[in-house]
Amino acid sequence: MPNKVKLLFLGDIVGNSGRKAVKIFLPELVKKYSPNFIIANGENAAGGYGLTEKVAEELFSYGIDVLTSGNHIWKKEFFPYLQKTERVLRPANYGENAPGKGWTIYTKENIKLGVINLEGRIFMRPLENPFTVGKFLVQEIKKETPFIIIDFHAEATSEKLGLGYFLDGLVSAVIGTHTHVQTSDERIMPKGTGYITDVGMCGAVESIIGMKINQALEMYLTMVPRKLEVEKSEKVKVEGIYLEFNKEGYTTYIERFRLINEP
Amino acid sequence: MPNKVKLLFLGDIVGNSGRKAVKIFLPELVKKYSPNFIIANGENAAGGYGLTEKVAEELFSYGIDVLTSGNHIWKKEFFPYLQKTERVLRPANYGENAPGKGWTIYTKENIKLGVINLEGRIFMRPLENPFTVGKFLVQEIKKETPFIIIDFHAEATSEKLGLGYFLDGLVSAVIGTHTHVQTSDERIMPKGTGYITDVGMCGAVESIIGMKINQALEMYLTMVPRKLEVEKSEKVKVEGIYLEFNKEGYTTYIERFRLINEP
Amino acid sequence: MPNKVKLLFLGDIVGNSGRKAVKIFLPELVKKYSPNFIIANGENAAGGYGLTEKVAEELFSYGIDVLTSGNHIWKKEFFPYLQKTERVLRPANYGENAPGKGWTIYTKENIKLGVINLEGRIFMRPLENPFTVGKFLVQEIKKETPFIIIDFHAEATSEKLGLGYFLDGLVSAVIGTHTHVQTSDERIMPKGTGYITDVGMCGAVESIIGMKINQALEMYLTMVPRKLEVEKSEKVKVEGIYLEFNKEGYTTYIERFRLINEP
Amino acid sequence: MPNKVKLLFLGDIVGNSGRKAVKIFLPELVKKYSPNFIIANGENAAGGYGLTEKVAEELFSYGIDVLTSGNHIWKKEFFPYLQKTERVLRPANYGENAPGKGWTIYTKENIKLGVINLEGRIFMRPLENPFTVGKFLVQEIKKETPFIIIDFHAEATSEKLGLGYFLDGLVSAVIGTHTHVQTSDERIMPKGTGYITDVGMCGAVESIIGMKINQALEMYLTMVPRKLEVEKSEKVKVEGIYLEFNKEGYTTYIERFRLINEP
Ligand SMILES: [Fe+2]
Ligand SMILES: [Fe+2]
Ligand SMILES: [Fe+2]
Ligand SMILES: [Fe+2]
Ligand SMILES: [Fe+2]
Ligand SMILES: [Fe+2]
Ligand SMILES: [Fe+2]
Ligand SMILES: [Fe+2]
Repeated sequence: MPNKVKLLFLGDIVGNSGRKAVKIFLPELVKKYSPNFIIANGENAAGGYGLTEKVAEELFSYGIDVLTSGNHIWKKEFFPYLQKTERVLRPANYGENAPGKGWTIYTKENIKLGVINLEGRIFMRPLENPFTVGKFLVQEIKKETPFIIIDFHAEATSEKLGLGYFLDGLVSAVIGTHTHVQTSDERIMPKGTGYITDVGMCGAVESIIGMKINQALEMYLTMVPRKLEVEKSEKVKVEGIYLEFNKEGYTTYIERFRLINEP
Repeated sequence: MPNKVKLLFLGDIVGNSGRKAVKIFLPELVKKYSPNFIIANGENAAGGYGLTEKVAEELFSYGIDVLTSGNHIWKKEFFPYLQKTERVLRPANYGENAPGKGWTIYTKENIKLGVINLEGRIFMRPLENPFTVGKFLVQEIKKETPFIIIDFHAEATSEKLGLGYFLDGLVSAVIGTHTHVQTSDERIMPKGTGYITDVGMCGAVESIIGMKINQALEMYLTMVPRKLEVEKSEKVKVEGIYLEFNKEGYTTYIERFRLINEP
Repeated sequence: MPNKVKLLFLGDIVGNSGRKAVKIFLPELVKKYSPNFIIANGENAAGGYGLTEKVAEELFSYGIDVLTSGNHIWKKEFFPYLQKTERVLRPANYGENAPGKGWTIYTKENIKLGVINLEGRIFMRPLENPFTVGKFLVQEIKKETPFIIIDFHAEATSEKLGLGYFLDGLVSAVIGTHTHVQTSDERIMPKGTGYITDVGMCGAVESIIGMKINQALEMYLTMVPRKLEVEKSEKVKVEGIYLEFNKEGYTTYIERFRLINEP
Repeated sequence: MPNKVKLLFLGDIVGNSGRKAVKIFLPELVKKYSPNFIIANGENAAGGYGLTEKVAEELFSYGIDVLTSGNHIWKKEFFPYLQKTERVLRPANYGENAPGKGWTIYTKENIKLGVINLEGRIFMRPLENPFTVGKFLVQEIKKETPFIIIDFHAEATSEKLGLGYFLDGLVSAVIGTHTHVQTSDERIMPKGTGYITDVGMCGAVESIIGMKINQALEMYLTMVPRKLEVEKSEKVKVEGIYLEFNKEGYTTYIERFRLINEP
């Protein structure tokens, strides 16, 4: 059992710009932190909506160990890959016959890291309760390893903070994703769990959560629904969080980061 | 000015099954009621989602004068047609630069019929206020004709009844669409406006609002989002309403109908 | 075991006007149908929001056997009564520590009637899955009696029809409530279950789902939230459904009704 | 016209704990920044829900110039005060007959500061369009002063970033409120407008967005709705933002802050 486990977690990777940002900045981050594990949320990595096998493999080639996801993962063409892979998760609180897996125990350098993906229900789909599903999975995974992280892909700050307090002392970290805007509230909770409401995103800097500004504004002015395209700018950023866990699995260090290139 | 204006209104036509139902039953309805105008909601006529030029023309060929629509009309390929036609409406309370028209004055047999399409906001998109937009348009169209009908495409019964009372005495009829289930509350409101919360749909009888039962149930069990396909059964129905307006434009007669074939 | 079981079900009773309507019309309905059981949805019976012990007892005194409810039942003052009574249900798909009971087997004249109350999740709270919770409870209650009815308190027609098809052949009837507007789609489903999307309400005729028209319109025009008051008119109605089940528990007869007084 | 205008803006003040935090930390902040104006969002200042005259006056006594608000401001007892005061705003994009004012030009030390309060529509009420209402008001106020700030009280990050880009170069700052969690994305937009997605809150540190943890968790586990109480802890925080505007009204400096006491 290691004395310290180091984790790097990247926020929602949005399209081509997001993948480019990961490619540019991940070596730098690895050099700085030498993490044992690199996790990222990939729900928007292929064209802004979902994943493909090719895109997932591209992200693994950059050094990412496991991809979590969220509400945007459900592209039918991706279901066969979701079914067979252990390295891409979908939220665990979908119904029991949903394709794919909601959690994994990923082993690397002889360390086991439990990763659980959950999706919020406030302003989102009416899924199974992430609090009860989450706690149940934590108790199962605890039998195998003290290192457990949760990607809580959710909209409402109240629900995210709620899960943070609910699992405080039971998991290594509760890391929020989905809003694509990084919050400044990273901290170690009273009982030792690392927490941030949202880690942010990887993608175009001048964009509306990664997508084209003019298209989003046209939508807000006309209210006509439309599929937005990924903003393809040269100026990209990576947002995420770095955590260190002690051998009991608790967070001893947490640091939020944002790297922007100046092309 | 005629002494009596007779209107036939058909609920949301869902896909191929809905078009088949219209083709089968419209001659029968025309024979029975000899309406001056035939209006139908076409938002689901092409494959369950939206309209195409070809499908619109098919429906006009059956005798429909004007097609109203709703939240499902916004398919990009259809925008050019929406822009040029006077016979397909989209809800009037989208932003001012949205493609298409939200109301029309349709003239036939020397009678002018004002048709306004509005969309609700409760559990739907945050559009312009259908109450204020609706009232403004009614006042404009009143200058031309006393015969004005509203297709209020909305979810919440409270909002639909609200618009009914709000426009009671100002229009000939407020006709609800969108839920695909016919209500039994057709009536003449206290000040003379014909009203029904929802006229229902045209499409497959054994279906979930026109779509495949097993696909909808799979969605409700797994909560994984999916595009549902139109149920293609032989047993189809037409649901709608027949109204008569006096020369002041008020409703003097209202009759709900549902015709089902037995193949 | 009886050869036939007769059930009368009344839609959401809204405030004082709704209770008055029940008092006026229930004797008439009993005379006409001589039902074995009378069930009503009472979620709006006390001032339009929730129930009180006094109001529940008043409704029982009119002959109602069991009161079902829905989203509006959760008034803290009512929790102690909810906990002890077997005759007022709250939706079964709230979390397991929610106060009250979500189903009952009510015995009368030696007949056992299973009553399950469920709440929808589309446009409503993210509760437990009404499909899986509902099916589980049906299987339990089946061990005791073939007569099982479901009050599915839900907004979306698609979800209501979905549960109807899902439980078709497994229960005596799936009866929709919550929208306060009666639908015209009552029927016996293919496998023998009685079904209606919504039975409607009991309360003031000239009202917006039982509440004051001018207050609701003020809300729709300003969008300022407000607690609406029950419309207290003399002209009231009762809406509901009458069903007959054969000894296997299937529906053999279904009839929708609406009674309005002319004061 | 001054060469520099300095603004201090505090996030949603939550109940007694939030007011205590303002009382403790505002003198310190004033000493550090010597702002020309102090604005705060007061929508949760009285017991967590809304404002009262007494609470508003208390906050003014600490040095706050203008209170903005949001979805929680609509307590009937507060309408008379809202109507008469110029120092408490409600979002401007409610219907035209809503009580109170949505914007003001506040003059102090001979400087005029335009303050506009807007509310988002994504996952919130279907109000008037904040983009078009906002732009119209900006154009009006521009005639009087170049110093204009917007409190955009909204949930969705996409809508908040959208308004930021939409008004970039037209106003001094777009400041987000409502989520009660501070984001780390404060910046000067490309055309000179200061921006942050959310400034955070003032209130209890160990709380769920200011409210009692155990009550919120009970709600998330049972899904039974309940009114949450303000967490009354000794450990409180103030979150907000400090901005400097040049004489053209553009932001030249922006700094996010969080002060926590250690009782
Ligand atoms: Fe995302
Ligand atoms: Fe997401
Ligand atoms: Fe439709
Ligand atoms: Fe629709
Ligand atoms: Fe109700
Ligand atoms: Fe309800
Ligand atoms: Fe707030
Ligand atoms: Fe708020």
